[in-house]
Amino acid sequence: MHSQSGPIGEFDLIERFFKTGTAINSTLSLGIGDDCALIKPLLGEEIAITSDMLVEGRHFFVGTDPESLGRKALAVNLSDLAAMGAKPLGFTLAIALPTVDTQWLESLSKGLFAVANQFSCPLIGGDTTAGPLTLSITAIGSVYFEKAIRRSGAKIGDDIWVSGTVGDARLALAALRQEIILPECDLQSIAHRMHQPTPRVELGMKLGGIASAALDISDGLLGDLKHILKQSQVDAEIYLDQLPKSATLQKQSLAIQNQFAASGGDDYELCFTAPSKQRDVILEISKSLNLPLTRIGHITAMQNDKSTIRIMGTNGNFIGDADATALLKSFDHFAQ
Amino acid sequence: MHSQSGPIGEFDLIERFFKTGTAINSTLSLGIGDDCALIKPLLGEEIAITSDMLVEGRHFFVGTDPESLGRKALAVNLSDLAAMGAKPLGFTLAIALPTVDTQWLESLSKGLFAVANQFSCPLIGGDTTAGPLTLSITAIGSVYFEKAIRRSGAKIGDDIWVSGTVGDARLALAALRQEIILPECDLQSIAHRMHQPTPRVELGMKLGGIASAALDISDGLLGDLKHILKQSQVDAEIYLDQLPKSATLQKQSLAIQNQFAASGGDDYELCFTAPSKQRDVILEISKSLNLPLTRIGHITAMQNDKSTIRIMGTNGNFIGDADATALLKSFDHFAQ
Repeated sequence: MHSQSGPIGEFDLIERFFKTGTAINSTLSLGIGDDCALIKPLLGEEIAITSDMLVEGRHFFVGTDPESLGRKALAVNLSDLAAMGAKPLGFTLAIALPTVDTQWLESLSKGLFAVANQFSCPLIGGDTTAGPLTLSITAIGSVYFEKAIRRSGAKIGDDIWVSGTVGDARLALAALRQEIILPECDLQSIAHRMHQPTPRVELGMKLGGIASAALDISDGLLGDLKHILKQSQVDAEIYLDQLPKSATLQKQSLAIQNQFAASGGDDYELCFTAPSKQRDVILEISKSLNLPLTRIGHITAMQNDKSTIRIMGTNGNFIGDADATALLKSFDHFAQ
Repeated sequence: MHSQSGPIGEFDLIERFFKTGTAINSTLSLGIGDDCALIKPLLGEEIAITSDMLVEGRHFFVGTDPESLGRKALAVNLSDLAAMGAKPLGFTLAIALPTVDTQWLESLSKGLFAVANQFSCPLIGGDTTAGPLTLSITAIGSVYFEKAIRRSGAKIGDDIWVSGTVGDARLALAALRQEIILPECDLQSIAHRMHQPTPRVELGMKLGGIASAALDISDGLLGDLKHILKQSQVDAEIYLDQLPKSATLQKQSLAIQNQFAASGGDDYELCFTAPSKQRDVILEISKSLNLPLTRIGHITAMQNDKSTIRIMGTNGNFIGDADATALLKSFDHFAQ
């Protein structure tokens, strides 16, 4: 046995904390312990791949609860799979650790595997090393060839939809930073939105063939929507008062509500576009998943060579371009 | 344009340094710029996945030439694909950077894409963030269902082979650390073995269906061979004087030669096992690739519940178990 924080071998670490019993799904031919993992996709399936890196002090606070960290690290990657309409198949974890704290690793592993098991997404490989605390996850999924939802597919006239509510993760961050004082019950009602985001995997899988474009909201609704616009070469109009906000966020001033809903990061809801003929189907999906899906605007023709979001007020009046307002403060790890 | 080391956005970084023109291979449906990359394997192919993380000060020296770093970071992952017999399809790069030094990034990118282009392995996605210098790469490959070479397939009587020469990377490290003084010409002849290892991709692809087990030598020949033995539940005999050594290493004392060849890390040669009936085929492969393949021992029955390597001397005399000698100093990032 190894001591609480003494030296421990790399192979021991993997065996002990990460080679646990996630349900192996049928496409996994070979898991941890060889030079590579092997996945055998079904006929007609493509493989979707996404990587994210989380650095201590940058993406999470020093001293963050390791179980929440484990949950979030995997959830944000599954959210990318969801935005593509892909079904999770497995993930790799590369982790740098300043010291080996077995209790901390047990908690991290618990959080990771809670999400892994929820989505039948086994750990299939990885790397552990000494270094400043950093987690890098690559998630692998599958999607039928015609069903992958790309960012480039939005068409003029398409509706713009968003799942769940937006702005709660930003509100929780504001409370943690003491920018805003929240009553304990309010904080409790939204803290999980920041610490334990729910990847919209089922929604993404149902939207294949229905949505024309999609992405997940990690940096802020308007900033992320811009990526769809840019890749689809279109503009958008957004109805500011249609943004879906939680009861807790609605207790804040209208200015805070709008700012956090429009450009707060870390929500991991899906923003997607779809032809208007799909409205009934989308509302059926909303019902079947018990997840609000809200129409917040529509796609318009590009007016100049730069994709633009026009923010519209209650009576359809034009408020301003998102670029020209304080709304569009998309989270950018280097530029902020 | 951005200043030399000023703030620069995450999206800019990817566009500018990493979205360059690697030849897209036929299986890549969608590259950088969406939530996920998409790869469409051929009928009957499995997907092989491997992840490695390189941390500054741990896996490479502070101030390492970024072009070499870029080459090595991708090469070590392709080496894992090679050890599985897989053909490279693409890779993701997650990178944490303390500052944005455009010159440094250009060099890193140059090194990465030199290897990417050599093996037709495009960058398909990634993540950039601020943080202590860390590179995490996930490489994706494909291998026909029956051709993947696992670590668990070694059988009693199989030959044990190794490609190229072993110990040179360790000798270069010893020279850098000034443990050993090498003439300039000797250092030049082996420095690339440490800084720019050659992943044995073509060899791995040819060994599918021929080798019974394989891995790449990253931590040291004997230490890595142990993983094959453990997973195959067998023992091995290794002929110490058969280990293939470069002319440069052969100038060192016999003790240094043996130690570096047997347990020096970072060689990234392949160690594999194969039935003796495959000897001719393997020597043909050696000839066609112009790459020495050397028979260094054979697989024996397990003598107790722990896989053992018996080291044999010139006249077939037993020298000792690898565990009982100073030879087996496998590089382990935590335990060293």
